[in-house]
Amino acid sequence: MANLTRRAMLGTSGGLIAGGLLKTKADAISFADNESENTIQDQDPTKVLGRLTSEVGQRAPEEQPRRLVRNPNVSHSSSSRTPLHQLQGIITPADLHFERHHAGIPTIAPDQYELLIHGMVDRPMKFTLSDLKRFPSVSKLYFIECSGNGGSSYNKNASREVDPQQMDGLTSTSEWTGVPLSTLLQEVGVQKGATWLMAEGGDAAVMARSIPIEKAWDDAMIGYGQNGEAIRPEQGYPARLLLPGWEGNASVKWIRRIEVKDQPTMTRDETSKYTDPLKDGTARQFSFTIDAKSAITFPAYPYALTEPGWWEIQGIAWSGRGRITKVDISTDGGETWNESKLHGPVLSKCHTRFTYPWNWDGKETLLMSRATDETGYVQPALSTLMEARGEGTSYHYNSIRPWKIEEDGRVYFGQGETS
Amino acid sequence: MANLTRRAMLGTSGGLIAGGLLKTKADAISFADNESENTIQDQDPTKVLGRLTSEVGQRAPEEQPRRLVRNPNVSHSSSSRTPLHQLQGIITPADLHFERHHAGIPTIAPDQYELLIHGMVDRPMKFTLSDLKRFPSVSKLYFIECSGNGGSSYNKNASREVDPQQMDGLTSTSEWTGVPLSTLLQEVGVQKGATWLMAEGGDAAVMARSIPIEKAWDDAMIGYGQNGEAIRPEQGYPARLLLPGWEGNASVKWIRRIEVKDQPTMTRDETSKYTDPLKDGTARQFSFTIDAKSAITFPAYPYALTEPGWWEIQGIAWSGRGRITKVDISTDGGETWNESKLHGPVLSKCHTRFTYPWNWDGKETLLMSRATDETGYVQPALSTLMEARGEGTSYHYNSIRPWKIEEDGRVYFGQGETS
Repeated sequence: MANLTRRAMLGTSGGLIAGGLLKTKADAISFADNESENTIQDQDPTKVLGRLTSEVGQRAPEEQPRRLVRNPNVSHSSSSRTPLHQLQGIITPADLHFERHHAGIPTIAPDQYELLIHGMVDRPMKFTLSDLKRFPSVSKLYFIECSGNGGSSYNKNASREVDPQQMDGLTSTSEWTGVPLSTLLQEVGVQKGATWLMAEGGDAAVMARSIPIEKAWDDAMIGYGQNGEAIRPEQGYPARLLLPGWEGNASVKWIRRIEVKDQPTMTRDETSKYTDPLKDGTARQFSFTIDAKSAITFPAYPYALTEPGWWEIQGIAWSGRGRITKVDISTDGGETWNESKLHGPVLSKCHTRFTYPWNWDGKETLLMSRATDETGYVQPALSTLMEARGEGTSYHYNSIRPWKIEEDGRVYFGQGETS
Repeated sequence: MANLTRRAMLGTSGGLIAGGLLKTKADAISFADNESENTIQDQDPTKVLGRLTSEVGQRAPEEQPRRLVRNPNVSHSSSSRTPLHQLQGIITPADLHFERHHAGIPTIAPDQYELLIHGMVDRPMKFTLSDLKRFPSVSKLYFIECSGNGGSSYNKNASREVDPQQMDGLTSTSEWTGVPLSTLLQEVGVQKGATWLMAEGGDAAVMARSIPIEKAWDDAMIGYGQNGEAIRPEQGYPARLLLPGWEGNASVKWIRRIEVKDQPTMTRDETSKYTDPLKDGTARQFSFTIDAKSAITFPAYPYALTEPGWWEIQGIAWSGRGRITKVDISTDGGETWNESKLHGPVLSKCHTRFTYPWNWDGKETLLMSRATDETGYVQPALSTLMEARGEGTSYHYNSIRPWKIEEDGRVYFGQGETS
């Protein structure tokens, strides 16, 4: 943009004092309610010595009224979601990485942890955590997404009052460190004819999934590190399977056993769940790969635009098949599309940040984003996805998410507004 | 490596139960002392429901005896360092990002925050935090390193008992989000003849530095986001200057004022400090750029290798001039060198992880790493650096760090062992 448009985007500096993010009534109220409890700048900070250094840092108390938290529910088969609309960039802080458990978070003593690999192998072996850390390691940035993510979008009459955390918060990106699963399989010696693995977790659900062995020879790993530190308990401490680009459930947490087999196991977790019913009465099973998807995180419900003018549309895009190659934006309900800016690094099977400057004319409209990945796959409209899958499917909801901008600047989920 | 060498690297699985990391006596003692206070797996975790989901996650209590913390000191002009030898990969968790303050951490209310840009400009302006967030944003992974980092290495008789945190923990990597400084300078309209900026912080030290204006037109930003969330107070909340690849002190935290000028200001902070004395009695001033450097984080003091055999040498490398192109490893005190593996993404002005598999024969030796960046600059030996700078310099200590392996497997800083 030229100098003039940048200035236009700001208006006068003073005019924007009330022009920041998080300008819903709810936020304004929560700010006011909490203000007295928080640290207030009552002195010129240049005239008083500041706090000392610390062992472990804390978030600014002034940020806490914004409730930068996950949204846990109270069942043991439960989840809590990453506040996507309150985050920037691609890294998810580990304490805000989404959770999805089938029987709560187990307590596993790291010095008692063992991973058994057996079945069609020459040398069945148990690996301690120290064993796993002794092998050559790999560190890579990957997203993990629950295949049930986006369920509230898969409805032509979806609620208008759903935010990006509630709708798509079951996806997060971390730098994962671990040992390639191929290293461990070479260690135990896989026998001829082996085609599947059965991966079993050490939680009270004994969550188990069948995995084609090709994924192990490709990029699967046993992860023990997350954003530099040990994996957190709710992400699989002390070790988890990690299948980059595949539905999160198959990346079995607290992994304790891998059986090498010549067929899938048809576990409860991949038959009663994580199989996608189709409209002809059949079902998609082993639908592992996360299809390309994008989500606008601003503007989105519950934000409101305080005035017409320049606003930056922001969001993330990802694909289980590789890199995102472009994210198109429509600011007129899908009539016209323009390419957004992708922020590097653009990595395979990793969240990619996109931004797009938009001059809002103050009129009602629909915003949409549409991701394309390196295989040429294009994120579909809801009607296209429903045509292929039927209305009864339970997983892999990657259709375009429209956001309705009303004349007063309020933003709502706009699925009901599309044809 | 072939299958056989991988197996050799593991030995038998059972033989490595005591073969993990952190096997110093001190760690063993701290584990024993703390064990009773921590969560112990006294039940089969598959037979008892686990913990529920939460709003904000916690580290595994079982990891806490390892003291994954910074090491604060108690002065207001103080620092606390990232535990590099306990982290993997390149991302530093925000609560472990190093600190360096000159008058403690100020408390700045975000709704009272303003950044003034004035001096040789057409339109002096104040920007609120909301104003800054309204502009087109950028998110990038960068390291920040204090120019005093590594001081304890710059001594031919350096202490043997110094760990990577104590020696090099004043460097950390985050994904930073903010507005390009060039955008703000276009906004205010820089006048002809302007060549320098004076950047001033809002802490009680009113820390101020002179910055060549070219850096603003290049990649400088005003940052407000760190690893997805708001910048932490100790890293400059609510906003800081960020000068990728330059000494951390110049990336002024809690930035409140930028004056556009036609000469450097010669502030206290760049004359009494952050100027490098040379042996001929002159000094290097405005030595902003961080030279290429690497640091082995394992094996290093206070680790001990529990047995001869395969171990993975691990570390990080970085350069303020761009990308790291290679990191060579010597396992024989500098006689021979071999290239390590760099783990992607290899990004400009960002930590890069390297690993190298090493078969220790059980004899005393010296390990070294040597980084090269995309400009062809090669990390120097201490003697080379001292020859250029003299013994009295106080900043930019990027010489090769040797680690002595003793016959019993104990590891010490080996500067005194080199010629």
